[in-house]
Amino acid sequence: MEREPSRRPGGRSARVRNSVLDATIELLAEQGDLLTIPQVAARAGVHETSIYRRWGTREALIADAVMSRMADEIPIPDTGNLRDDLRAFVARSRGLLTSPLGRQFLKSVAIAPRSAETDPRLHYWPRRLEVVAGIFERAIARGELRGDLDVGLATEMVIAPIYFRLLISHAPVDDEFEQRLVDFMVASLEGG
Amino acid sequence: MEREPSRRPGGRSARVRNSVLDATIELLAEQGDLLTIPQVAARAGVHETSIYRRWGTREALIADAVMSRMADEIPIPDTGNLRDDLRAFVARSRGLLTSPLGRQFLKSVAIAPRSAETDPRLHYWPRRLEVVAGIFERAIARGELRGDLDVGLATEMVIAPIYFRLLISHAPVDDEFEQRLVDFMVASLEGG
Repeated sequence: MEREPSRRPGGRSARVRNSVLDATIELLAEQGDLLTIPQVAARAGVHETSIYRRWGTREALIADAVMSRMADEIPIPDTGNLRDDLRAFVARSRGLLTSPLGRQFLKSVAIAPRSAETDPRLHYWPRRLEVVAGIFERAIARGELRGDLDVGLATEMVIAPIYFRLLISHAPVDDEFEQRLVDFMVASLEGG
Repeated sequence: MEREPSRRPGGRSARVRNSVLDATIELLAEQGDLLTIPQVAARAGVHETSIYRRWGTREALIADAVMSRMADEIPIPDTGNLRDDLRAFVARSRGLLTSPLGRQFLKSVAIAPRSAETDPRLHYWPRRLEVVAGIFERAIARGELRGDLDVGLATEMVIAPIYFRLLISHAPVDDEFEQRLVDFMVASLEGG
């Protein structure tokens, strides 16, 4: 009888990755981003060298862990209409980005990585934008939006202003802003 | 005969501010952001304590200097139509943000300040967005856009995706992106 209750896909390498990322998230919750790679290694039951080899730096490891978790935590709504999908997505994003995990995420996204290969942001964003694009693709399929819409850019347009305010202009991300952002997207895309 | 060739508005306090910011920009050009406050004080001919009192930290001083200069360096185009105004603005922003001054600016905008009072970003962005909003206000006055447009948000929508790519997703800001951004704004705002 093998003691291996959960076999996530991808074999041993993926299991190591998952246990390291889980340990990182746990330690972040317990003590913030003062965590060390030896702590993570001990918690995950792997060698430190495996962590250094795969992630390079503490910052890259934290960014990867937080980004993996964030993607899980913002499911994409499917309410049946564009306005409600956008409203739910924006509200959920705002809620998560102002939580402790979200603040760590914002710190991670703003830190310059040492090399492109160990930069989880380069993997995170294309995948993430593709998932969020589903909101617009479904609206096109329902006939709410024109089929020639630049879906990729529409997706960036709904995400970028939230990050711009949180990280750059420091203007408030509040109910009023949420409402204006959704109204703007719906009115301009539907030609209202 | 007084030796005071240029009297910028605002009296002595504004003159001190300008000479400190000019000295900071000069030193940044000469040696990057390794500059020290004593160096800036010597170059500007003011006491170090005046600099600490007004700016608090080296980072706040650099951010203020770079932001003051950036605002001067991106004049807002007035070509007579929305598409060309947006095209010129986006091209100019991109050119400047990828220059050495622009890269310093991007570093400064991403750094968290110690306190709201010494944070030049809180002063920079409202003013800056108001100036850029002129592009949309003129388009409304010409009858190109509806008078009930949310001008403030439209302005953020044209700026935010550029910063999102440069600072957050690290997707390319190239000719193709510029073209798509301008097309998207014009098509969605004019109901094309």
